[in-house]
Amino acid sequence: MSEAHIGVARPRIDAPDKVTGATKFGADGYVHGLLHARLVLSTEAHARIRAIHGDDALSVPGVVAVLTAADLPTATTGTDRAAEPLAREEVVFAGQPVAMVVAETEAAAEDGAEVVMVELETLPPVVDLEDAMRPGSALARLVEKAEGGSDLESIHAGVDHGQEDAEQEQLSANVLDRVQRKNGDAAAALDASEVVVFGTFRTPWVYQAYLEPQVATTWLEPSGTLVVSTGTQGSFVSRKELARAFGLPLDRVRVVAEPLGGSFGGKLALIEPLAAGATLALRRPVRLVLTRGEDFLATNPASAQVTHLRVGARKDGTFTGIEARMLVDRGTNAGWGVEGITSSLLVGPYRWEAHDIVGYGIQTNRFTFGAYRAPGAPTAAFALESLLDELAEKLGIDPIEIRLRNAVVEGDIGISGNAYPTIGAVEVLERIREHPLWSARASLPENEGIGFAAGYWPGGNEPAAAICRVDTDGTMTVVTSSVDMSGVDTGFAVIAAAAFGLDPNKVRVVFADTATGPYSGASGGSKVTYTVGKAVEGAARAARVKVLAAASQELEIAPDDLEVVDGVVRAIGAPDRSITVEEIVGKALRYGGRYEPIEGHGGSAQTRGAPSVAAHLSHVRVDRDTGEVELLRHVIAQDVGRALNPALVEGQMRGGAAQGMGWALFERLDHDEDGRLLTGSFLDYAIPVAERVPEIDTLIVEVPAPDGPFGAKGIGEAPVVGAAPAISNAVAAATGVRIHELPMTPPRVWQALRQDSGPTETPA
Amino acid sequence: MSEAHIGVARPRIDAPDKVTGATKFGADGYVHGLLHARLVLSTEAHARIRAIHGDDALSVPGVVAVLTAADLPTATTGTDRAAEPLAREEVVFAGQPVAMVVAETEAAAEDGAEVVMVELETLPPVVDLEDAMRPGSALARLVEKAEGGSDLESIHAGVDHGQEDAEQEQLSANVLDRVQRKNGDAAAALDASEVVVFGTFRTPWVYQAYLEPQVATTWLEPSGTLVVSTGTQGSFVSRKELARAFGLPLDRVRVVAEPLGGSFGGKLALIEPLAAGATLALRRPVRLVLTRGEDFLATNPASAQVTHLRVGARKDGTFTGIEARMLVDRGTNAGWGVEGITSSLLVGPYRWEAHDIVGYGIQTNRFTFGAYRAPGAPTAAFALESLLDELAEKLGIDPIEIRLRNAVVEGDIGISGNAYPTIGAVEVLERIREHPLWSARASLPENEGIGFAAGYWPGGNEPAAAICRVDTDGTMTVVTSSVDMSGVDTGFAVIAAAAFGLDPNKVRVVFADTATGPYSGASGGSKVTYTVGKAVEGAARAARVKVLAAASQELEIAPDDLEVVDGVVRAIGAPDRSITVEEIVGKALRYGGRYEPIEGHGGSAQTRGAPSVAAHLSHVRVDRDTGEVELLRHVIAQDVGRALNPALVEGQMRGGAAQGMGWALFERLDHDEDGRLLTGSFLDYAIPVAERVPEIDTLIVEVPAPDGPFGAKGIGEAPVVGAAPAISNAVAAATGVRIHELPMTPPRVWQALRQDSGPTETPA
Repeated sequence: MSEAHIGVARPRIDAPDKVTGATKFGADGYVHGLLHARLVLSTEAHARIRAIHGDDALSVPGVVAVLTAADLPTATTGTDRAAEPLAREEVVFAGQPVAMVVAETEAAAEDGAEVVMVELETLPPVVDLEDAMRPGSALARLVEKAEGGSDLESIHAGVDHGQEDAEQEQLSANVLDRVQRKNGDAAAALDASEVVVFGTFRTPWVYQAYLEPQVATTWLEPSGTLVVSTGTQGSFVSRKELARAFGLPLDRVRVVAEPLGGSFGGKLALIEPLAAGATLALRRPVRLVLTRGEDFLATNPASAQVTHLRVGARKDGTFTGIEARMLVDRGTNAGWGVEGITSSLLVGPYRWEAHDIVGYGIQTNRFTFGAYRAPGAPTAAFALESLLDELAEKLGIDPIEIRLRNAVVEGDIGISGNAYPTIGAVEVLERIREHPLWSARASLPENEGIGFAAGYWPGGNEPAAAICRVDTDGTMTVVTSSVDMSGVDTGFAVIAAAAFGLDPNKVRVVFADTATGPYSGASGGSKVTYTVGKAVEGAARAARVKVLAAASQELEIAPDDLEVVDGVVRAIGAPDRSITVEEIVGKALRYGGRYEPIEGHGGSAQTRGAPSVAAHLSHVRVDRDTGEVELLRHVIAQDVGRALNPALVEGQMRGGAAQGMGWALFERLDHDEDGRLLTGSFLDYAIPVAERVPEIDTLIVEVPAPDGPFGAKGIGEAPVVGAAPAISNAVAAATGVRIHELPMTPPRVWQALRQDSGPTETPA
Repeated sequence: MSEAHIGVARPRIDAPDKVTGATKFGADGYVHGLLHARLVLSTEAHARIRAIHGDDALSVPGVVAVLTAADLPTATTGTDRAAEPLAREEVVFAGQPVAMVVAETEAAAEDGAEVVMVELETLPPVVDLEDAMRPGSALARLVEKAEGGSDLESIHAGVDHGQEDAEQEQLSANVLDRVQRKNGDAAAALDASEVVVFGTFRTPWVYQAYLEPQVATTWLEPSGTLVVSTGTQGSFVSRKELARAFGLPLDRVRVVAEPLGGSFGGKLALIEPLAAGATLALRRPVRLVLTRGEDFLATNPASAQVTHLRVGARKDGTFTGIEARMLVDRGTNAGWGVEGITSSLLVGPYRWEAHDIVGYGIQTNRFTFGAYRAPGAPTAAFALESLLDELAEKLGIDPIEIRLRNAVVEGDIGISGNAYPTIGAVEVLERIREHPLWSARASLPENEGIGFAAGYWPGGNEPAAAICRVDTDGTMTVVTSSVDMSGVDTGFAVIAAAAFGLDPNKVRVVFADTATGPYSGASGGSKVTYTVGKAVEGAARAARVKVLAAASQELEIAPDDLEVVDGVVRAIGAPDRSITVEEIVGKALRYGGRYEPIEGHGGSAQTRGAPSVAAHLSHVRVDRDTGEVELLRHVIAQDVGRALNPALVEGQMRGGAAQGMGWALFERLDHDEDGRLLTGSFLDYAIPVAERVPEIDTLIVEVPAPDGPFGAKGIGEAPVVGAAPAISNAVAAATGVRIHELPMTPPRVWQALRQDSGPTETPA
């Protein structure tokens, strides 16, 4: 084992194929006899389906079928997207697929879809989140919520749903879930605090804005196996969902996860059931590629949320009580919502004497809620870190200092009642405080400000497995079923190389589909490097045991006295007594060979989490005439456990910060009062383009995760969490005005600057 | 672990798909943009290529290219079939591919191939094996034998090439290899023997006659990886050969072994280089499917051989000396021949006081030699077992009894100087002797006879690996890279089920390609069940360790006190304290799961062989007027180690015996004096059709192989070995005439019956 290659910046192993156009994405493959599907989306947010007329479409040359819900061989009565790929009786959001035209060409499918007549009986749409939860409000779905259903929630985070509250509220049936987390007497703690601040914070629906719209291609093998080639974050998840939706045995569904053109949480068994349903109905290969417009309308963006939050502190800055009501818009997702995650993250990486946080998952007629990088976390951090900034200001304590005084350390009890594992909150706060930008805030020009905020993500655990195999040319193949969403494959190569004793350039990482692959859960929750990477480490070590055993016989030296360094097995202390790995494999992989193949399998099942903390400094200039916020510079410090590849780590940090800038300033999916999407294209929906993203300094902090591979942990989610509040706090520093609603668009800022009211609202 | 399911006859797991037509063979897949190749074969057996004119072919609509050797990007100057897929300057057999027409349709390719003009300058063809080896004879190949080359030999058997002989013979350069095995003074031993018999035995070229002609489809991924979908016995072998032939890194070749429609040794990297060469030249997908006629002409059947053999015995039947010269026709295969194997097998499973056996590998202008079920063994057994029968007759000892007196047992020293491992020769001979047919020979009608012969195959060893994975539905997937040529997958299922503790119906076996699969060598040499099966056993046991560890935590019982029975983990002695495997896997394969995936990897590297002995009784009736030999009944007894699935074992025994009947009575590839094939279709080349195959009794003998999975061993080759001499001995019993040349066609038998000369030739 040699750690020499760990911590060295290396190019992504998938980069050459991607930059030369050689990567085959989901829409690139060809299947003989392929049919193309085009969706017919509901134009109404809430309606009863009276009839769907496909005759005109069927008369379009090339159209093979117009499919409605009744044509798909679904096996359950569930109302989740997998169980009900096409709306059955009731349409619950504008953009919901109600029919699918399948044709020999894409053009014919499109022409056909345009002339499908859908007769809808409009029902009152539920679009206002706060209205929706009031008793007696109109319901967003008349059909009863089905039992059972998907367990997609469990992919993202392992959250419990808190305690049952003794005093039940009167709530609308639109409230699908109520999560309460309570410890001590938060109200009393707040009452006894020197300073209390409060506010109501609003964040909109936000689109994941991946480059590659969703795509799935499905076909039946002659044996009857349904093969699914798809852009998904989780092949085994997709297999499970499809088996459930269509009542198929697991082994009759084979999911091939194609290289992903971005996903960020949004691609999980959403589109596969549509293509699969068509294939099962027509017994022909079917491809469904969403247009960008359909992807805006018909997929599963991040929830809008409203957070009422009150926090207090003592004079010395010690945090006391935290009290909140968090309203989470699930859209039509009856299966799960982020109310559990967001309400558990609201406390931040800080100690509180008492907490009382209630989260509500509320259905409306807007989209189906889905995951987006650190689901629920940016919203929680926006509320909390804004108020902590106010608290610091009121107490006259440096904003970083006040957080340092309350930052959790290993062993502190978290909101779930469990002790924190190793966590680098203090290290990150101390590190970013040293950055010159923080001291620069004393002498800024007018209308400029520097803000600080922190955020964290608890990380995830899921058992995983991996295989390492060494070939006769001395190169290693790492096999996993893990979808590479963020460069994890490149990390696997370094892990395997270090654990075995090989140059990372001699390691390739390949993906196996569900028919033959070792188990991996969905990529998401910042768990792949931590969990699958650990399995890769185990697999490489198991292969190393094999090569040492063989070398031991060849060299007549005990395995314990041997080491493997850059592909050579040699005696420790006598490196001239050696044999190459290539030579050993050559002696194993042949007729009459005396050694087992140099292969290993590794499994992992961590039970301790590996949270990552990221802190941000944002330097902004606010144009008081237009309300425009210009980002001048950004700093992010993050505890990454161990930076296996600093270049990729910095890429995640910068990417997360940039997406946080989108949350802060640009992005929102708006509906009109009838629930129709107003911002359904990149003309209407702004994302942070390169010229709006400032220079981002990255400070890598390494507090090794004890159970991670070489101390590494998942780092994908944390960097997005605190970016928006850092920017919001910078705006407050520049202007004295605190904005409580995202995104901070010029009109909103302009208006806030003109309002008489101060930054703090009167509590409800 | 439960062995309850071992030894139970079960249907083949591949049978439903095969009988319903759902299996996708190599020619069934579709690739977008696929081109079709058709070969232009040499009409001459030996010639210099003057020119190849493709203009007419190129004018056929749809023809894309006419490729010659110069167009293929081969990387070596070797003359083996992989290195020289199309003849370069010299044609060395009639049927050798000299050009390839590639077209948009099969019809266009065929039309094009018909009008390719090949200008050949005829050279003297070498067709007579005995002539070819004489000093000064014409050479079958003028181009020097290239260095290096394939190591396909090592796939079939691990034979050494004997000792160097001090007295070198004067030999033609057509003799590519001379193998001598010598121990003691064989001539002196023979001189001192009471009885000596001798003969010259001839066997022809024999075609493997698989149902599915050879097929390969190749294409390039955008990344540059060459993908090869092929009917092959060994995916890793094919990968290695293609990488060598075209100078590609191993990981740029991905071989997908499709289900095989029969092979018997003949499908190893023979056709893939043609398709791959075309794909690399044209950068387009190419399929090459041989017609039956091309498959007869252009592939690699079993060698013709001439064996001069002399054996002796003492009065009590003890075998003394054995002396032989074996001439093996390699055709144009410069890389390897069976002279090594056949000369080592000539001694049979018997003890000899002294031996002196020389094998010659001789090139001629007939085909390229390839492997066929137990390569070299039927020919060796035909010679030996015929003479042993004579020996017994001359000594007045029962033919089985004389063999029993000399049969090897574990620890006896074999021809290579190594001690025999466990071997069931005695058990098999004793068992078949008890069969009623043997005693029936005393009272037979005229012109009927019952013959006996034995044969054996040493088995093979090659390291292998396998993976077992348990899914959330409690079913297991076994992953190997082993091609199922003979039902081995069904055996793997039983091995895995027994080693883990599951019903075999809950086990599926899947094939992984070279990109992700655990290592397996080629299927062949009767080694797959023994070696890969052992790895499967190890993988299942490794998975079992995982499930026991998890169950131990769930049940709070030590793993050692638990057992797994039919998918339930339960306390030994307290079966009500239990948990199902399905439940455990459900707790492992989920977010936050506490147990490693229930998966395991197994490797094997046996160093002891597991020889299998098979003995035959044949009951025949000879028509003295026509010379026709009618097979009335056949008995085969074989030591199979352990019959994992008696139905499949019996299938192998019957199939082997039936193919031996082909050797005995029907099959021969004949050439005319110019080296042109005379028997290039199933009209001219007879194989044993069902009505010519008698009832075959099977006697399974189980002498467990110590290193095999549950005592099992490879059993595919042994049953073919002794069938022909048993039939020949039966003919001798019926007629008093011994035939020394196969096949025993009616004209040949008729002529032998009319010859004055007795059965024994004068020694040379």
